[in-house]
Formats: sequence, C-alpha cells, structure tokens
Amino acid sequence: MYIGPASGFRLERESEYGSREQNEAAAEIVGAVRREGDEALLRYTELHDRVKLTPDRLRVTEAEISAAYEKVEPAFLDALRQAAANITAFHEKQKRSSWMDLQPDGTMLGVVMRPLKRVGLYVPGGKAAYPSSVLMNVLPAKVAGVPEIALVTPPATGGREGIDPYILVAAAEAGVTEMYRIGGAQAVAALAYGTASIPAVDKICGPGNIYVALAKRAVFGAVDIDSIAGPSEIVVLADDSADPRYVAADMLSQAEHDEMASAVLVTTSERLAQAVAAELDRQVATLPRREIAERSLEQYGAILTVGSLAEGVEVINKLAPEHLEVITEDPMAVLGTIENAGAIFLGPYSSEPVGDYFAGPNHILPTNGTARFSSPLNVDDFVKKSSLIRYSREALLRDAAGIATLARHEGLEAHARAVEIRLEGGESQ
Amino acid sequence: MYIGPASGFRLERESEYGSREQNEAAAEIVGAVRREGDEALLRYTELHDRVKLTPDRLRVTEAEISAAYEKVEPAFLDALRQAAANITAFHEKQKRSSWMDLQPDGTMLGVVMRPLKRVGLYVPGGKAAYPSSVLMNVLPAKVAGVPEIALVTPPATGGREGIDPYILVAAAEAGVTEMYRIGGAQAVAALAYGTASIPAVDKICGPGNIYVALAKRAVFGAVDIDSIAGPSEIVVLADDSADPRYVAADMLSQAEHDEMASAVLVTTSERLAQAVAAELDRQVATLPRREIAERSLEQYGAILTVGSLAEGVEVINKLAPEHLEVITEDPMAVLGTIENAGAIFLGPYSSEPVGDYFAGPNHILPTNGTARFSSPLNVDDFVKKSSLIRYSREALLRDAAGIATLARHEGLEAHARAVEIRLEGGESQ
Repeated sequence: MYIGPASGFRLERESEYGSREQNEAAAEIVGAVRREGDEALLRYTELHDRVKLTPDRLRVTEAEISAAYEKVEPAFLDALRQAAANITAFHEKQKRSSWMDLQPDGTMLGVVMRPLKRVGLYVPGGKAAYPSSVLMNVLPAKVAGVPEIALVTPPATGGREGIDPYILVAAAEAGVTEMYRIGGAQAVAALAYGTASIPAVDKICGPGNIYVALAKRAVFGAVDIDSIAGPSEIVVLADDSADPRYVAADMLSQAEHDEMASAVLVTTSERLAQAVAAELDRQVATLPRREIAERSLEQYGAILTVGSLAEGVEVINKLAPEHLEVITEDPMAVLGTIENAGAIFLGPYSSEPVGDYFAGPNHILPTNGTARFSSPLNVDDFVKKSSLIRYSREALLRDAAGIATLARHEGLEAHARAVEIRLEGGESQ
Repeated sequence: MYIGPASGFRLERESEYGSREQNEAAAEIVGAVRREGDEALLRYTELHDRVKLTPDRLRVTEAEISAAYEKVEPAFLDALRQAAANITAFHEKQKRSSWMDLQPDGTMLGVVMRPLKRVGLYVPGGKAAYPSSVLMNVLPAKVAGVPEIALVTPPATGGREGIDPYILVAAAEAGVTEMYRIGGAQAVAALAYGTASIPAVDKICGPGNIYVALAKRAVFGAVDIDSIAGPSEIVVLADDSADPRYVAADMLSQAEHDEMASAVLVTTSERLAQAVAAELDRQVATLPRREIAERSLEQYGAILTVGSLAEGVEVINKLAPEHLEVITEDPMAVLGTIENAGAIFLGPYSSEPVGDYFAGPNHILPTNGTARFSSPLNVDDFVKKSSLIRYSREALLRDAAGIATLARHEGLEAHARAVEIRLEGGESQ
C-alpha cells in the first residue's frame, strides 16, 4: 500500500477486454444461437453448464419460485423487502413526464418518454449471484414502467443443478416477469436475437464473466447494453475529525470485494493517516475474506496526505471514484467542488454499505474512473424519448426561407422543395 | 421499390463494422497517438491529409474565424442564427436541477447533476461537413453547461488546404471554445488521450468515415462516445386525407441523403399509394441528387398498404424509424400507440426538413431500428449524475440489522462490520 503525499500516487488498472481466443469463442456462440436458436442454446448449455435441458424446461416454474420462498429465512426476506421499498421510493423520484411546448401559431414541440418494452437481466451463478444486485437492476426498470423483464442465470452452480433460491426470491420480489435457466454467452445471444422459447429483448443488463461481457459487446447495436463494470473503488476524504475505525472499516468493505478493488484515503491529517494504517492492520486480521482484502490493499490501496481539503478534492476529481465518502467537519462545504464521483456519502454515519444495500440510490455505479462521464444506473436508462414536432401552415410560412437556405447550402435540394411544395397554391385539402 | 401489403416487406440493412484490415489500421493509429502524442498526430496528418503542420499551427486562429465570417452570405448567417436560437430554446427545456429528499431523522438522499467538463466534436471534411450538424451537436452540450468544447476537422478538403468557412462560422456561433485542423482516427485518439497541444476530453461526438467510427469504438471506455450513426430512414403514416405531393417530397428528402437511406409510406389508402408512386417518379426526375435518390428508393423504398391505422402503427413499431411523419385526419389519435420512433412529425405542415434544420428538436436521432431503445441527442447526454447519501446515526440504528443481514448473506462480512462498528459505544467524536 502506498502511504505518502498525493502527488506520488497514480491509480491504474486495466479493464478486461479479453484475449483474441475469448473474443472468438464468444462470437462463435453468439453466431450459432442467432442462426439456430434453441438448438444451439441447449447445445452450449449442455457443453458449458453440464445440464441437459429441453425447450419446455428452460423457464423456471411458479412451483420452483414458491419452493424458493420456503428456503429463505424470514429475516432475509424482511430486509430484502425493506431494501426494495427504499430503492423503489428513491427511483420513483427520477421519473419524468412527457412534455410539450405550445405556441400561439399552432406549433407544438415536445418530448414523449416511454419505457422500453422488454429488458433482460443476466445474473451470474455461484458466489457472484447477489440478491441485492437483482433489486438494483430490476427496480429502476420496473419504476420506468418496463412491462416485461426476463432474468437469465446459469442452471447449475458449482456442479450442483438448480438456481440459488435467494436469487429467485429477490427476482420475484422485484417483479421479474420471466426467469430462464441459461447462462454464458449463449444466454446473452438468446436475449439479443430471441429464440423459439425466449423472445428478444431491447436491452441487456447485469454483470457476468468475461464471455458474458464479450457477448454483450458483440450484440450491442441489435440491443442496448448497460455499461460493462470494471474494477471498483472507494475514496474517503477525511480531516482530523474522522474516526479512524470507521474509515478503515469502510476501506475494507471495498477491499474485500476483489483483488482489483481499490480503497484510498485522502486526508489533511497526518495523525489520521497513521491511525487508519494501524486500524487496517487490526481489522483485516479477522476478516473471512482477509486474503482478498490484503491483496487489494497491497496493490491498489493508498493513504494520501494533502495540504488542504481543496487539494484533496482535486485528487478526487482526477480519480473519479465509484464511491466517495466525505468524513469531515463540514461535508456540505466541499460538496460543491466535487465533480466526479458515482455516489457521494456524507458524514460519519453514511458508510458505503448503507448505499450498497439499503438507502435507496443505486449501487450500480460508474467504475474505473468513468464517473467523469457516466452515471449511476437510473430510471432514464430504461426510458426512450421521441421528439415531437407539429408545425402549422403559419409557422411553415414564417420559417420556409430559412430552412430552404440551409438545405440548399448543404446541397440537399429535395429538403428545400419538401418545404416549398407545401406553400404552393392554397392549403392542403 | 416494394409496393404492396405491409406483410410482404422487411427492411434489413447491415451497419458498418469495418473489415479486419480497417480495424487494425484504426487501432494502429490510435495506439501510436496515445504513445507518441503530437508527433504521431502530425505524422498521420501528413500521411492521410497531405498537409504538413507544426504543433503551433494545429489550432484555428481568431483571424481565420473572422475571415470565415467575411465569406458567408448574410442570408445564411441569419438562417443559422435563427436555427441556433430555436435549438437552444428547445434544449433549455430539457435541463434538470439537482434534487434532494430530506427526511425528519436527518437522512438526505439526492442526485447531483453536473455537466461534463470537456467535449470533443468530430466534423468530417468535404461534402459531409454540415453546419446544421455542428449546431445540433454543440448546442445541447452548451445548454448542459459544458465549459470546454473542442472541434476537430480535417485540414484539407478534396486536396485543397483549409476548413470550410461555413463550418467555422457555425462552430463560432454555437460556442465551440477551440478548433483544431486534424481529422481521421488520429484526431479521435488525440481527443481521447490528449497530446501536448490538445487536452483530452470526456466525450467524443460527431459522425465520420469508417476509420473515425472504428477509432471512436476503440477509445470508448477511456472516454464516452455518442452512438455511431447507421443508415437512416423515414416512415410516413398517411390516410386518404394526405396530399400525395407532400408525401412524395418528404420521402425524397430522406432518399437523397444516401443510397442506404430508406423512405417508406404506410397507408390505408390504395388511392394514395398509387398517387405517391406517380409523384415520386415525377419529382425525382428533376432532383440534382436524382441518382442517389433513385437507388435508395429502388433498394430500400416501399409503399405499404395496411387495413387500418392500427395495423400501420404495428408496422411502424417494428421498423422503429428514425423519422416518422403522421399525415392523417387526426394525428393525435394515433400518437398514443406509437412506441418506437426517433422524431415524430404531426400533420401536413410538419415536413421532415423542418426538424432537420429549424424547429428546435435535435436532428441526431437513433437510426436503423435503434429507436426501440435509444433517444435523440439531448442535454442528458452531456450531464453526469452523482447519487448523494447522508445517513444520520438514528437512521443507521434503524437500518443496521437489515444491512448486516443482506451483507452477511452475500458473504461480505466487512460490509456488515462497517455498519456495526459505528454503533459500538457512543457517538463519533
């Protein structure tokens, strides 16, 4: 871990784009499913997941979902439902109405907002299957009004057939309308192009392994995809008022995710820097995911000292972290200068896990410095807009010369004539 | 051109992804500019544009911009300024404020909206350099509040050194802050990674040739890019009340763009279908871009008859056209059923060129069926959001058990502890 002045630190991690072989493997699967539909889908499922299915067994049944509810603890279900209610309430505030602007001459301009019709969600198998991520992906689409949400997830986990009951329950609670036991690049291709058993979607969301990511990239254009998540990070901006135990605990909650994760403290306090370093050592020692957290801290962790909070904010705007905590005497005083961060947590009680699970804002955030230009997953990601233009004859008369001038300058004579033909003779019948 | 029942028609055009050689050429240029900066930028400019530049001559000077104003006609400038005022006014209505939700226990949740800091716009050379597209790309960024907008465009057009004065004037009017005489994949790479002469941007917009498109795709992730435009289309939905001269003129205004463009009439009126076919023949004969328009109509044009307007809307929702005109007795009656269209033009006087140049909505629209999931270029495309979370101790006490339950279920012990450590003992000092 780097400990020292901010000027000596640079965070650089490569995103995963896959080898040529991996790209070719993903492309081959996508092409086969596009051409052959269910047949290829079942073939690759048998090959990669070692589960032999028939088309009528692709879809998870109501009975299986009911059985899943029997398996989850009441405390889990209660927490999940409260989280879902909070996430829904927050995203409801992002909804926008279609609008129009009416002018006295009869002109009407506007924007129509409509939900996407059908969205697909990829949920990875095994340990990376997070019920919280199911809520975070599905609920913004639900709030947007998307009527059909299809979930896909591998049919087996670690050799054992069957889908995690917690995932099934989270999906049912969130309002997923269909679930299919398919995974990998073949599942992405089925969602993108449709098969006899699985209708095509308009957008595919959700994380997956490298083949899933490459397949998503390959089908982009035929459907929309969400951004492909890179390694994630937390930066804590703190002054001497911060409690080192809290700071260290929050850094570890990022570091335990994976070895590529990055946890960085930026502080004006030499005392805090030392105390957090000691706390990290102390707290990491008893973590179940100790090895992962230690490797993350070692490679991508840092404690950076700065001369002022303003200098600290400069460092942060360059890092553009996924998560930013501001634990200073007056967090609102620096908020106005923070330009780049996916989610901003203010004050000593706003620990990152509050946002990961519960408060309501989305935990799917721009990673690896992309907060410079991207945003948390939100309702807009499931809405498409159409512009609306109604011109009156009066308005067209007023603007015709200007339109024709610009069109002719660009060499587009038919554009000019399309306007002028409407002004020949009288009104349209 | 296909003329007949809608059930017999399918529109399929491949988007351009480039050959392996083209991809490799673009990747090589991007890599060289990333590594070597200005040196590679100038080398490729000499190689591909046959113009030898020095770093101090990359930027277009104030004197050149003033000289450009001397060359454009007053009628052009007037029309351009009116168009810019209309586009600005329409996009102003898309702006959104940051918002917050305050709860009695001291919790604050919200979203901060901030403009991107620096945007690059690619403007192709030659005949594809459209002043109207400069306005349509720059003004939404300007309205969003982007402080730095850098334009790049090739230094020579058809062998002649110099940038089109109409482009320079449109850029100056729109509020571009810097202009550089560079083009091709090397210009995209310079914008993405920065050089000694050209600071890196956060997002790259604008159309270009295949090498520009491939370079944009290659730098995506380091910066954001706009969607890559595919072949474009118009669909006119009309009943017996429509004037066949208007319908044909609007179809031709799309067909003259390029041979891949598609113009389709969907109508309930056999009489209109016949009359439009005759009008197309009559009107195309005198167009300067007759050959392009004829090839477009021949390959991708169609006149489709349907049994009802409802059936017509079904056809439209499948095509998801870039432009849709509704020329029926009561256009508002069908508007509620139209799901997929980039821009919708209502009534006999709302000719597509009104939207291309003047009314205010953006003319950069989702093409090739992507209106199913994408939107016209708009102010949101130049805004990034940050979630805001401030929890109080009271709120954390209330939610801690739920957060810890979900975190432990997902195997993330450090997440649970980060919350619980804050509830040990008393309040934070």
